[in-house]
Amino acid sequence: MAELTIHLNGKLVPESQATISINDSGFTLGDTVYEAARTFDGVPFKLDAHLERLYRSLAYVRINPGLSPAAMEETIREVVELNRPIIGTDFWIYIYISRGIYVDNIRHYMPATLEERPPTVVIAPKRLPFASLAQGYRNGVHAVVPSTRHTPTQCLDPKLKTCSRMHLVLAEYEAKQVDPKAWSMILDVHGNIAENKSGNVFIIKEGELFTPTTGSALAGVTRGTVLEIADDLGIPARETTLQPYHAITADEAFFTSTGYCIMPIVKVNNIPLGDGKPGPIVRKLLAGWSKRVNLDIVAQAESHAR
Amino acid sequence: MAELTIHLNGKLVPESQATISINDSGFTLGDTVYEAARTFDGVPFKLDAHLERLYRSLAYVRINPGLSPAAMEETIREVVELNRPIIGTDFWIYIYISRGIYVDNIRHYMPATLEERPPTVVIAPKRLPFASLAQGYRNGVHAVVPSTRHTPTQCLDPKLKTCSRMHLVLAEYEAKQVDPKAWSMILDVHGNIAENKSGNVFIIKEGELFTPTTGSALAGVTRGTVLEIADDLGIPARETTLQPYHAITADEAFFTSTGYCIMPIVKVNNIPLGDGKPGPIVRKLLAGWSKRVNLDIVAQAESHAR
Amino acid sequence: MAELTIHLNGKLVPESQATISINDSGFTLGDTVYEAARTFDGVPFKLDAHLERLYRSLAYVRINPGLSPAAMEETIREVVELNRPIIGTDFWIYIYISRGIYVDNIRHYMPATLEERPPTVVIAPKRLPFASLAQGYRNGVHAVVPSTRHTPTQCLDPKLKTCSRMHLVLAEYEAKQVDPKAWSMILDVHGNIAENKSGNVFIIKEGELFTPTTGSALAGVTRGTVLEIADDLGIPARETTLQPYHAITADEAFFTSTGYCIMPIVKVNNIPLGDGKPGPIVRKLLAGWSKRVNLDIVAQAESHAR
Amino acid sequence: MAELTIHLNGKLVPESQATISINDSGFTLGDTVYEAARTFDGVPFKLDAHLERLYRSLAYVRINPGLSPAAMEETIREVVELNRPIIGTDFWIYIYISRGIYVDNIRHYMPATLEERPPTVVIAPKRLPFASLAQGYRNGVHAVVPSTRHTPTQCLDPKLKTCSRMHLVLAEYEAKQVDPKAWSMILDVHGNIAENKSGNVFIIKEGELFTPTTGSALAGVTRGTVLEIADDLGIPARETTLQPYHAITADEAFFTSTGYCIMPIVKVNNIPLGDGKPGPIVRKLLAGWSKRVNLDIVAQAESHAR
Amino acid sequence: MAELTIHLNGKLVPESQATISINDSGFTLGDTVYEAARTFDGVPFKLDAHLERLYRSLAYVRINPGLSPAAMEETIREVVELNRPIIGTDFWIYIYISRGIYVDNIRHYMPATLEERPPTVVIAPKRLPFASLAQGYRNGVHAVVPSTRHTPTQCLDPKLKTCSRMHLVLAEYEAKQVDPKAWSMILDVHGNIAENKSGNVFIIKEGELFTPTTGSALAGVTRGTVLEIADDLGIPARETTLQPYHAITADEAFFTSTGYCIMPIVKVNNIPLGDGKPGPIVRKLLAGWSKRVNLDIVAQAESHAR
Amino acid sequence: MAELTIHLNGKLVPESQATISINDSGFTLGDTVYEAARTFDGVPFKLDAHLERLYRSLAYVRINPGLSPAAMEETIREVVELNRPIIGTDFWIYIYISRGIYVDNIRHYMPATLEERPPTVVIAPKRLPFASLAQGYRNGVHAVVPSTRHTPTQCLDPKLKTCSRMHLVLAEYEAKQVDPKAWSMILDVHGNIAENKSGNVFIIKEGELFTPTTGSALAGVTRGTVLEIADDLGIPARETTLQPYHAITADEAFFTSTGYCIMPIVKVNNIPLGDGKPGPIVRKLLAGWSKRVNLDIVAQAESHAR
Repeated sequence: MAELTIHLNGKLVPESQATISINDSGFTLGDTVYEAARTFDGVPFKLDAHLERLYRSLAYVRINPGLSPAAMEETIREVVELNRPIIGTDFWIYIYISRGIYVDNIRHYMPATLEERPPTVVIAPKRLPFASLAQGYRNGVHAVVPSTRHTPTQCLDPKLKTCSRMHLVLAEYEAKQVDPKAWSMILDVHGNIAENKSGNVFIIKEGELFTPTTGSALAGVTRGTVLEIADDLGIPARETTLQPYHAITADEAFFTSTGYCIMPIVKVNNIPLGDGKPGPIVRKLLAGWSKRVNLDIVAQAESHAR
Repeated sequence: MAELTIHLNGKLVPESQATISINDSGFTLGDTVYEAARTFDGVPFKLDAHLERLYRSLAYVRINPGLSPAAMEETIREVVELNRPIIGTDFWIYIYISRGIYVDNIRHYMPATLEERPPTVVIAPKRLPFASLAQGYRNGVHAVVPSTRHTPTQCLDPKLKTCSRMHLVLAEYEAKQVDPKAWSMILDVHGNIAENKSGNVFIIKEGELFTPTTGSALAGVTRGTVLEIADDLGIPARETTLQPYHAITADEAFFTSTGYCIMPIVKVNNIPLGDGKPGPIVRKLLAGWSKRVNLDIVAQAESHAR
Repeated sequence: MAELTIHLNGKLVPESQATISINDSGFTLGDTVYEAARTFDGVPFKLDAHLERLYRSLAYVRINPGLSPAAMEETIREVVELNRPIIGTDFWIYIYISRGIYVDNIRHYMPATLEERPPTVVIAPKRLPFASLAQGYRNGVHAVVPSTRHTPTQCLDPKLKTCSRMHLVLAEYEAKQVDPKAWSMILDVHGNIAENKSGNVFIIKEGELFTPTTGSALAGVTRGTVLEIADDLGIPARETTLQPYHAITADEAFFTSTGYCIMPIVKVNNIPLGDGKPGPIVRKLLAGWSKRVNLDIVAQAESHAR
Repeated sequence: MAELTIHLNGKLVPESQATISINDSGFTLGDTVYEAARTFDGVPFKLDAHLERLYRSLAYVRINPGLSPAAMEETIREVVELNRPIIGTDFWIYIYISRGIYVDNIRHYMPATLEERPPTVVIAPKRLPFASLAQGYRNGVHAVVPSTRHTPTQCLDPKLKTCSRMHLVLAEYEAKQVDPKAWSMILDVHGNIAENKSGNVFIIKEGELFTPTTGSALAGVTRGTVLEIADDLGIPARETTLQPYHAITADEAFFTSTGYCIMPIVKVNNIPLGDGKPGPIVRKLLAGWSKRVNLDIVAQAESHAR
Repeated sequence: MAELTIHLNGKLVPESQATISINDSGFTLGDTVYEAARTFDGVPFKLDAHLERLYRSLAYVRINPGLSPAAMEETIREVVELNRPIIGTDFWIYIYISRGIYVDNIRHYMPATLEERPPTVVIAPKRLPFASLAQGYRNGVHAVVPSTRHTPTQCLDPKLKTCSRMHLVLAEYEAKQVDPKAWSMILDVHGNIAENKSGNVFIIKEGELFTPTTGSALAGVTRGTVLEIADDLGIPARETTLQPYHAITADEAFFTSTGYCIMPIVKVNNIPLGDGKPGPIVRKLLAGWSKRVNLDIVAQAESHAR
Repeated sequence: MAELTIHLNGKLVPESQATISINDSGFTLGDTVYEAARTFDGVPFKLDAHLERLYRSLAYVRINPGLSPAAMEETIREVVELNRPIIGTDFWIYIYISRGIYVDNIRHYMPATLEERPPTVVIAPKRLPFASLAQGYRNGVHAVVPSTRHTPTQCLDPKLKTCSRMHLVLAEYEAKQVDPKAWSMILDVHGNIAENKSGNVFIIKEGELFTPTTGSALAGVTRGTVLEIADDLGIPARETTLQPYHAITADEAFFTSTGYCIMPIVKVNNIPLGDGKPGPIVRKLLAGWSKRVNLDIVAQAESHAR
C-alpha cells in the first residue's frame, strides 16, 4: 500500500519519514495544541470551526504558528487532496502545532525565549476505525466512571485541545479494567460529568437532551453540530451540570466526537440504560447526522466493517 | 563541534538523527514518563534513586520499558561515557520512555491494545546552563506566584514525572509576565505551595527548613538530598503545608532541582526576603552540597560563565 | 384504635408486628432506598412519579426489589385501601426496600454475594401531622442554616432517596439549637443551598421563583408540581444556584415536601423576610395546590388541628 | 445448631426473634451508632477502647443509651459468655444503638422530641469468616480505588461509627466490578486515601509504615494497636496524607479492621506490589499481633478454613 | 476651592472635619456596608436600586441604620444638592454605614451588645476621575488574572457590599505587577471569573453577551443596566460560568461599575482581544448607555480630560 | 476619669480626638493591619514577637509604616507609660496601620499610586474586660460552630492580621444565636477547625494538647506561649488538623488570645466536655501562665470583677 503524505513544517513527506526531534517541546513537555477534523464524502467537515478553535488554543498557549488561518486551511485542503487516492474517501485530518525545538538545552531556565524558535507544524491524515464504529453503532458501548478526575480549568482547561493528555490515558485504562471494551466517562473534581477521553457526553431523559456546560468540557465541534441537529428535529436540548446519577438513570445516552460523530451508550457502570440497546432518539440523531452530511454514516461504517 | 550521541530504542544515533514518529504517543498524548539525572565530576549522581523513581512512574502508568533497571543503568552509563569527551565533564542525562508508536490510527478506540506495541526509549545528555546558574547562585532569583494552579493528585499526580506538562509551561509564562527573569512558584488548588515548574520549594524561618509534603509535590531526588545535608549540618527540617504567606515572610528560601541543585530565592512577588541577597543558610547548604559531591558547584558554574 | 396494616415482604401484618431482623442491611448499613407518597382525598398523588424515582434509586444502588413497577403499584393501592378506614382519608405511604438479611455474618468480606438474598420490602401508611401543618401554614416557619453540609454527589448523591440519613438528623439538631421550632436549610460543601432534611427550598424575588438545581438536591416530586403550578399561574420560575444571601434577602421563601406540599418560610437565621408573615405568592401557590388536588389543604390541616 | 443469643433492649432473645420495628429510626434514617469488637481466646479485645469510642459517638449524635459505660460493659461480657458455647471461642461482638421508635409518625417535623423516646440497644455476636481470612493472610487481597468518594468530615465525619453507610456499599460494589474479590480503597473528595469500607489503610515504604491521619478516616482500634506493635518491633510509623500513587508504588500495604486485624494488600488497581505476595513487614506485624493476643491468628484462620 | 459637604451621623460637616473615631468598628473590623451611586446630569441614577441593595446588606449583617429608606433617600438628595455647586454636575455619592463606636473596649467578648450602640452613617460625594475614564473609553484597559482568589460565598459573600476589602486590594496589586495600568480580573476558588475589585465582567462572543452569575459576583446595578440596554438593542445576553479561557478567546470584553459604567477590555494577560481596540459591540453598548442617561458619557469624560 | 492618650500619626491626642478621615482606606477598604499586645504588671508581653508579626503583615500587604521596628517599639512603650496612671496596671495595646488617606477620590482606578500617601498609624491602649475574664476562668465558655467558614489562605490568609473582619463578625453572630454567651469556633472551607474570631483553639485528649496548624489559623503569640508552657510542664503538644468531632469528644479544650491568655471551653454545640467544668490540664496551663508572667492572672481578673 502506498504511504500517506504528511505536511511537516512546510514540506510534504511520506508518513514513515514524518518525525520530530527528541528535543521538540511537543515530545518533552506535551507542549502542543492540536485539532482533529474529518471528511464526509471527501470534504472536510466544518473546517472553519476547527480552525477557529485551533487559533484560540494557539493564542491561549502563546504559540505563533507562522501561518495565517487562510494559509493553514489551504495547506490542509492540499493534504486532503494528496491523500484521498491512498486512504479512501473518508478519514481524519490531524493538525498538531508544538512550540518547536529548543535551540539549546536550558529549557528549565529560559522559557521566555521559547518564542524565538519556529513551531513544529504537522498535518496528517489518519484512517477511521470503521469496523469498531459499526459495532458501536449497532450495539452501543459501555461507559464506566473512573476514579481519576479531569483537570480543573484553573490547572489545565479542558477547553484547550492540548497534547498533555496522560491523565486521560490513565482514566481510560481504569475504565478498561472493568470491561476491556468500556469507554471512560470522566468526572471533574466536584463529581460532575466532564467528558470522555476525547469527546463529549449527552444524556436523554423524557425526550430532552442534556450535556455538560463547557465549564468542565471541551466545546466540541461535534457537540455543537448535535445541538444544531436536535434543534432541526425539534428535540429540546440543555447545557447543564450532570452527575453519574443522571447518566445511570437516563433513558438513553451517547458520546460525541469528530471521528464517530455519535456513539450510543447502552450501559453505565454495568447498569443497562432502558433495554440495553441504542434507543430511538439516539438513532434519530444518527439519521439526522447522515442527512446533514449527505452520507449514511452507519452504512458507511458497516460497509467498511465487512 | 561534534554531535552528541543519543540512545534511541536500542541504537546509538547522533542527536540530529534522534527523532520520533509523529504517531508516537509521546508526541500525540504527552504519554511519556521521564527522569533527569546529572553528573558531578563526570559521575551520575544518585542514579539508583532516579531509576527507582522512573520504574515507579512506569508501573503507575503501565508502560513496560522492555529493559530491567540493571540494563537501563548500564545503558545510561554507556551514554554518559560516550558523550563526556564531547559535552564536557558535567551535564544532564534525560531518560524519556513513551508508550510508543500506534500500529494503526484508531487510538481513540483501542487503548487497551496499546501495550502490544514497543515503547520508545530515549537516553539523551543535555548541556547544563552554567552561565545562568552562576548568575542565580550569585544574586538569587525572583519567585512569582502565578494564577494557574498545579494539577490535583486525583487528576494528574505531581509525583509522577510525565511529559504532559503544558500547565507548567503556562504557569511559567504567567510568572514571566511580572518579570522576564522570574521563576514560577506554583500553588495547588487549595492555595498551598506545590512546586516550581520542575523543582521543589524550601523556605527558611528562624533557622529551620520547611518544604511542602509530597501530597502536592514531586518527591524530588535533590529535595531528598537537601534534607540529608540539612541533617548533616544540624539544621532542623520539616515537611508541612506552606502558603505564599510563609514564603513572603521567610528569612530565606530556595528552589531545588537536579540541574542547579539549590537556587536561592531573594524576592517573592516583588517583595524582597531579608536584605534581598542569598542568605547565610542557603549558602551553607550550597557549600554542604559541594562538599557532598566533592566539587565546588558554585565555582564550576562561575568558571563556565566566564 | 385499630392497628394499621403493613405490607412486609409479601405479607400483610399489623404495625406492631412489622419488624425486621437486626441482621437486615437496612438496619446495619442504612442500605435502603425509600419513597414517601401521600393521598389527597384518599387518592395517592403522582404515584407513577414516585414509583419511577423508586426504580431509578433501586437501579442505581443495585437492589432488585423482586416486584415489577406494576405489581408494586397494585400492592401500594391495596395497602392504601386497607388502611383508609383506620387512618382517615389522607395520610403518607412510605415504601422502604433494603438489600435484606445477611445469610451469614461475613458482610465485611462478601458484599458481592449480597444480591443472592431477597430484599426487604415494606409498604407502610403513616399519619400526617395536621396540627403542625396548620400552624406552619398560618405563621410560617423559621429556617436556620446549620454548620453541617449536605453530602456531595460524588459521595452520596442527594438525588438518591436512601435511608443513610444520619447527617441530615445532625443538621436538623443544629438548627433546633437556635430555635426548637426551626427547620434546617442545609448547604452543600460549596455553601450553596441544597435542601432541608427531606424537602426542597424555593425563594421568591421580585415575583419570580428560584430553586436550586438537582446538582445538589433531590428532584422532589412536590418541587416538580410547584414548578407546574407556577407555570399555570404565570409565575416565572428558574432552577439556579442559591446561597444564604438569596434566602435572607428574599421577598418570600418556602419549603416543599410530600407531606406538607408547601411550607412558608418567614424568617432565616432570625432575620425576618418582608413583614415576617407568609407572603402573597406563597399563599397563591398554596391555593393553586389546593385547586390542583381538589382539596383545600390548609383548611384540611386546620380542621384536624382543632 | 443452637441459636445465638442477642441482647435487645434489656432482654436476651434468640437471634431469630431479635427484630426491630419498621418505625425504628435505625431503619428509617440510618440513625444508629455502632461498634464491632472481637474476642481472642474468648476474651474481648480492648473492650474499653471500643466502649470509649462508642460513648464518643453517642455524645456527638446526641443519643442517650440509657446505660452507663460500666453497665454496658457488663452486659456485653454477659452476652459473650452466653454465646461462647454455641459460636466457638472467637467471634465478633456488635453493639448497635439507634435513636429508637417514633411515638407518632411526624418525624419530618418534630425531631426535637426524638430524645424523649428510648433508644434501641442491640448486642449481638457474629461469626468470623475464618475461611476468607485464611485465604487473605496467605495470598493477600486486591485493592481497587472506586470513583465514589468518602463523605467529608463537614458532612458525615468518618470518625463517627454510624450505620448510614450506603455510600460505602456503593464504593465496594464499584471495586467488585473490577475484580469480584477486590476490596475498595476509598478516597476522600481531595483524592487522598481515606479508608476501606470498614477499616484503615497502611502502606510500607523503605521499612516505614504510613497511614492516613484521622482527618478523613476512623481512628480504628486495630489501627491504634498496629501502631503500638510497630513501635514494639522498632518499625517507624507516621500518620500523613497518602494518595493512590503512594499505595501503587509501595513496597507493601495492608488493611486493618477488628475482624481480620491485618490483611495484606498485594495488588492495587491490578498493579502488583513487589512480587505480588504478602511481604516481610506485614508478616512480621501479623506475627506481632499473634504474640500480643497470645494466639496465632493466621493458624486459627487456617484451622477453621479446613 | 471650596470644601465638599459630608453628611455624618445626622450632621453636615466640611470634608476635612468628616472623621470617625479610631474605636469605630468600621475602622477596627471593616464592619461597614456601603453603596456607591453616581449622577448623570446632576441626577442620581437608579438611586432606588442602590438603596434597596443597601438595605439588603444591612439586614444581612444586622446593622440597624436608624433611618428608613425614604429618610435615607431624602438625606442623600440633600447632600447631592449641597455639593453640586462645588464638585460640578456629575460625581459619585458614597454611603457608608458601620456598626458604630464601641462604648467600652471589650469588643472581643461582647459582640452581642454591639447593637445597642448607634451606627455610623456617612454620605459623601466623590469626584469622578474623568481623565482616566476618557483614556479607558478610547484605548480600552488591560485585564490581568491575579493569583489571589475572591472569597467564597460561605466565607464572605461577594454579593454583600462591605468594607472588608483587603483581599481585593491585594489582588489589584498583583495585577499591577504585570502592568501598572492593568485591572484585576479576579477568579473564585474554583477558577471561575468572579469580578474585578469593584465591578463586574462581561465577555462578548459571536454577538452574544456573557457575564458570571451572582453565585460568585455582586449583582451590580450597572451590570443590571447593561443587561437592560443589551435587551433594548437586541443583543442576546446570558448569565453563566466563565473561565479565563472564555475571556482570552472572547471577541470583546468589558468591565462594568457605577463610576465608569462600561469599560472596554482590550487585552487579557497580555493577549490582545481581536485587533486590540474597543470593539463594535462595546461601543454600541456605551452609546446605548449615553442614550439611556441622555448624556454622552464618553464626550463628558473627554471634555473633562482636556 | 481622665482620658486615655492615643498616638496618632506621630502626635499624642486624647482618645476623644483620635479620629481618622472618612477617606482613610482603613475605613473605606478595611485596608489596615494591626496587632494587639497586652501588659502583665505593667510590662508589654513579648512585644518583640508582636512587632515582628506586624512587620511581616506590613510587608505582605505592601504598606510602608514610615517607622523602623525600633522606633515603633519606643513609641509603643511611651504610650504605655503615659496611660498607665489612667488605665491601671494592665491593659491592651492596639497598633493599627492603614494605607492612609486618598489624595483624590479616584481609588477605583489608581491603587498603584496609593503608596505615595503616608499611612495612618494608631497606637491605643484599651481596657481589659476583667469581669468577663473572671467569669470565663471560673465557669468556662460555650463554643459553637457557625455555618460561616473562615476565608481560605488563597483569598485572605488568616495568618495576616488585617481589619477586614466582617466575616468574623458574622460568624460570631451566628454562634450568639445559639447562646448569647457562646463563642464561635470557626471552620475553614474543608470543615477543619480554624480559629475563633480572634484567637486560637486547643483541644486536650488523653493528656496531650492539639491545635490546628497555621495552614488555616493565625500563628498566635499566645498560642506560641502556650506551646512553650506545655513544653515546660511536660505536656506533649502537636499541631495537626482538627474537626468538630475532635472538639466535641475532647477531654478539655480552650481558646487562646492576647487579652485572656487561656479561656477554658466547657461545652461545644451544647454538648458538655467531661463534667462541664474547666478541667485539670487547662487549669495547670493557666497556673503555668501566671507563673510565667509572675502574676496570678485568674486572681487579677477576679479582683477586678468584684
